[in-house]
Amino acid sequence: MNTHSQMINGLDKDQMMTTIAAIQQQPGLARFQFRARNRWVSGGENRSTIQDFYGAGQEDDSRAQPFHFTNGEPPVLLGANEGANPVEYLLHALAGCVTTTLVLHAAARGIRIRALSTELEGDIDLHGLLGLDDGVPAGYEQITIRMKVDADCSDQELEDLMGYARQHSPVCNTVCRPVPVRLERVV
Amino acid sequence: MNTHSQMINGLDKDQMMTTIAAIQQQPGLARFQFRARNRWVSGGENRSTIQDFYGAGQEDDSRAQPFHFTNGEPPVLLGANEGANPVEYLLHALAGCVTTTLVLHAAARGIRIRALSTELEGDIDLHGLLGLDDGVPAGYEQITIRMKVDADCSDQELEDLMGYARQHSPVCNTVCRPVPVRLERVV
Repeated sequence: MNTHSQMINGLDKDQMMTTIAAIQQQPGLARFQFRARNRWVSGGENRSTIQDFYGAGQEDDSRAQPFHFTNGEPPVLLGANEGANPVEYLLHALAGCVTTTLVLHAAARGIRIRALSTELEGDIDLHGLLGLDDGVPAGYEQITIRMKVDADCSDQELEDLMGYARQHSPVCNTVCRPVPVRLERVV
Repeated sequence: MNTHSQMINGLDKDQMMTTIAAIQQQPGLARFQFRARNRWVSGGENRSTIQDFYGAGQEDDSRAQPFHFTNGEPPVLLGANEGANPVEYLLHALAGCVTTTLVLHAAARGIRIRALSTELEGDIDLHGLLGLDDGVPAGYEQITIRMKVDADCSDQELEDLMGYARQHSPVCNTVCRPVPVRLERVV
């Protein structure tokens, strides 16, 4: 028996199918809670720590060390490029999520992905952030993802897969749909 | 003359005021375009490069080196913790953006921030991602930000400032409001 026979697109198809069957039997296993802790440093610089999360019915303990990320701003936005800025990290999150969602559903359909890359552009008007014009939204006006995919399927199958990934990507859906954000003060 | 006299919350108040005056005179300076390039590695692992952007009327050239970020997934989501996952990066982006927006508008109001930290939680049901239930959104159901702030202002001023930051944060606004995302195939 070849233990690698079930790998497709770097994913273990047996584990995928087992996970889906488990969720279908016990829907609560699909409930996840992700978390981040952030501390302001100075100006536009602040740092996040990401480690624990809840999912599949328990607290995850798979990460021995936390991930650390630094937000910063470029000089034109009053910073010193201490890190990428928050709206750039959002593009990174979106790129990764649409990619992983596509690769996952390709695997479920038996489509092999040979290569996949994306370029993202997001347009923003700082009148919103600065409070200079209440008619201008503070966030992105629109975001464009240009995707190159090399896969062993027809053009039509690939178009279907891309549309499906766009609809089912958690970050893409969070951006496309209004998601409530509560900001609470801890005293 | 003390050259540090105009620094507040780590921001140069003179530069802030100059920027705002310039935008008021020439509104096109407020148009920014941020970008990311991402390449799939395998499974849930992919990597972004972030460097250039357009803003204040020109291509920015302040970054000699690009930023690199790796998305991954934990074992329970078929990965090997190659990096934080995309929905976790979104929380990092949101934390940083609300923080920077608050610190910026505090500076504009003459409020000094001594310390600021946040804890974020985002709830998600994987029935959406997996396409197991069309009634379940793929993205976050809601996100909660718990913020601790130590500032030299009254409770009421702080509550006002927090509400203003929530409304004017670009990432928070992108999450709270439906933002169009176009996914185009490049052949």
